[in-house]
Amino acid sequence: MQLISDIQAMSEQIDKWRKQNLSIGFVPTMGYLHEGHLSLVKAAKENDKVVLSIFVNPMQFGPKEDLASYPRDLKRDTKLCEENGVDIIFSPTAEQMYPQNFSTYVDMNSISDKLCGASRKGHFRGVCTVLMKLFNIVRPHNVYFGQKDAQQCAVVKHMIEDLNLNLKLKICPIIREEDKLAKSSRNVYLNEKERKAALVLSKAIFLGENLVKNGQRNPKIIIEEMKKELLKEKLAKIDYVSLVHPKTMQELEWIENEVLGAIAVFIGKTRLIDNFLIQELQ
Amino acid sequence: MQLISDIQAMSEQIDKWRKQNLSIGFVPTMGYLHEGHLSLVKAAKENDKVVLSIFVNPMQFGPKEDLASYPRDLKRDTKLCEENGVDIIFSPTAEQMYPQNFSTYVDMNSISDKLCGASRKGHFRGVCTVLMKLFNIVRPHNVYFGQKDAQQCAVVKHMIEDLNLNLKLKICPIIREEDKLAKSSRNVYLNEKERKAALVLSKAIFLGENLVKNGQRNPKIIIEEMKKELLKEKLAKIDYVSLVHPKTMQELEWIENEVLGAIAVFIGKTRLIDNFLIQELQ
Repeated sequence: MQLISDIQAMSEQIDKWRKQNLSIGFVPTMGYLHEGHLSLVKAAKENDKVVLSIFVNPMQFGPKEDLASYPRDLKRDTKLCEENGVDIIFSPTAEQMYPQNFSTYVDMNSISDKLCGASRKGHFRGVCTVLMKLFNIVRPHNVYFGQKDAQQCAVVKHMIEDLNLNLKLKICPIIREEDKLAKSSRNVYLNEKERKAALVLSKAIFLGENLVKNGQRNPKIIIEEMKKELLKEKLAKIDYVSLVHPKTMQELEWIENEVLGAIAVFIGKTRLIDNFLIQELQ
Repeated sequence: MQLISDIQAMSEQIDKWRKQNLSIGFVPTMGYLHEGHLSLVKAAKENDKVVLSIFVNPMQFGPKEDLASYPRDLKRDTKLCEENGVDIIFSPTAEQMYPQNFSTYVDMNSISDKLCGASRKGHFRGVCTVLMKLFNIVRPHNVYFGQKDAQQCAVVKHMIEDLNLNLKLKICPIIREEDKLAKSSRNVYLNEKERKAALVLSKAIFLGENLVKNGQRNPKIIIEEMKKELLKEKLAKIDYVSLVHPKTMQELEWIENEVLGAIAVFIGKTRLIDNFLIQELQ
């Protein structure tokens, strides 16, 4: 396995692979890998080569967010990548990604200003921009994202379509801890008490999912029930609970065929997200 | 020569060429081709294949601009392309380029809000977005632009660098009519009187260029002289006369090594641009 941090060196390696007609699978991450990421790597093994990027992208963090404290452990990540058959870790520096005169960005109306986009202004502009850069450097045939970041998946899918990118998006299911907490690099922020309190997210998610599956079609009632569940936990502070269309992220007035139930909840100072996705009802 | 309007069909043709390791030269245009465009085609013949796109991009026109009246003549363009060795004319529909839910865009701070970007709000956002789409569909090795749209050249160069696009930008010199009017599809708007009046643009440009070449380093003096020249023509209404750094488009306070002298002038209702570029002084 190679560890490459230079953009030019990465691009040259891709040139070689592309000339040999090798297929390239790409897993973009911010590092501090967990089994969610590794499930993406596993899926990406369907390609001849797997590139995993580790880049804590300053552009997608707000001024009051956790950029500086975001957990990093390249040594551990390297070991995990090696064990799981990653061919290259691409880990560029912020200085090379955003040189002094950097001023171009990719942004999106509509999908990106709902949910997390409403709470985290400029977040998806940062996500779209860095992904456009990474896609152009790594030039993958297939890219792998986790369903846990449901809105990110929708945004990336839309960006790929709108800008005619030559790659396929593969979305992999949420991976959970044994007690059902969705895996996240940010779980490391939680102290023992908060870790226990965080279980309320998946509880609310499963509650909402079951209500839909059992025939409830009124989003308001489901949201109310989910909020009630969340508020049972004193350490939890709701950012949003929304039932939206999985493609447009528009709030649903009534559930027809498909629904994304998405929540963001602060447990202490840590903002966690979780969701359920139902793509075909009946 | 093929005429392709379907995005998918275009992309599949590129797939074939890419698999054969053929180099692709790309000339993006809005059609109504003149010798300026044909000089780009000629330069692009250094590649194995040449694609020329014709797309009058609604996104780069302002609400009060000339989108509807912009000159179009696909039959004549086709003949010119055939004669000049273009392999494919790619001429997509606006409906396919911008489907109903289209909402992603590429934009830029700094470079793009000066000069034409100040007069034509949103113009370069439209330019960057459509070019990103076209680049992803045509996947060229080399793209060819005319120096006449100096700011567009700077914007595209910057976009390529910032977003790590895998292509080389080749900029070709301004082509002029015998009487020195810069070739432009918009020249067709001019009536006989205006056509004559339009000569004042190149006069002002050559005046400015000569002042720099003869040692004048104070932009204010040069701009004043150029404006004086332009105002001799009663049909001319100045949009801007600027001496800027060719990369950043920042107004110069003093001319050091390089300078772009750019003007935009209305002749009647027709907005024309012209410029001189000096890249190495001493």
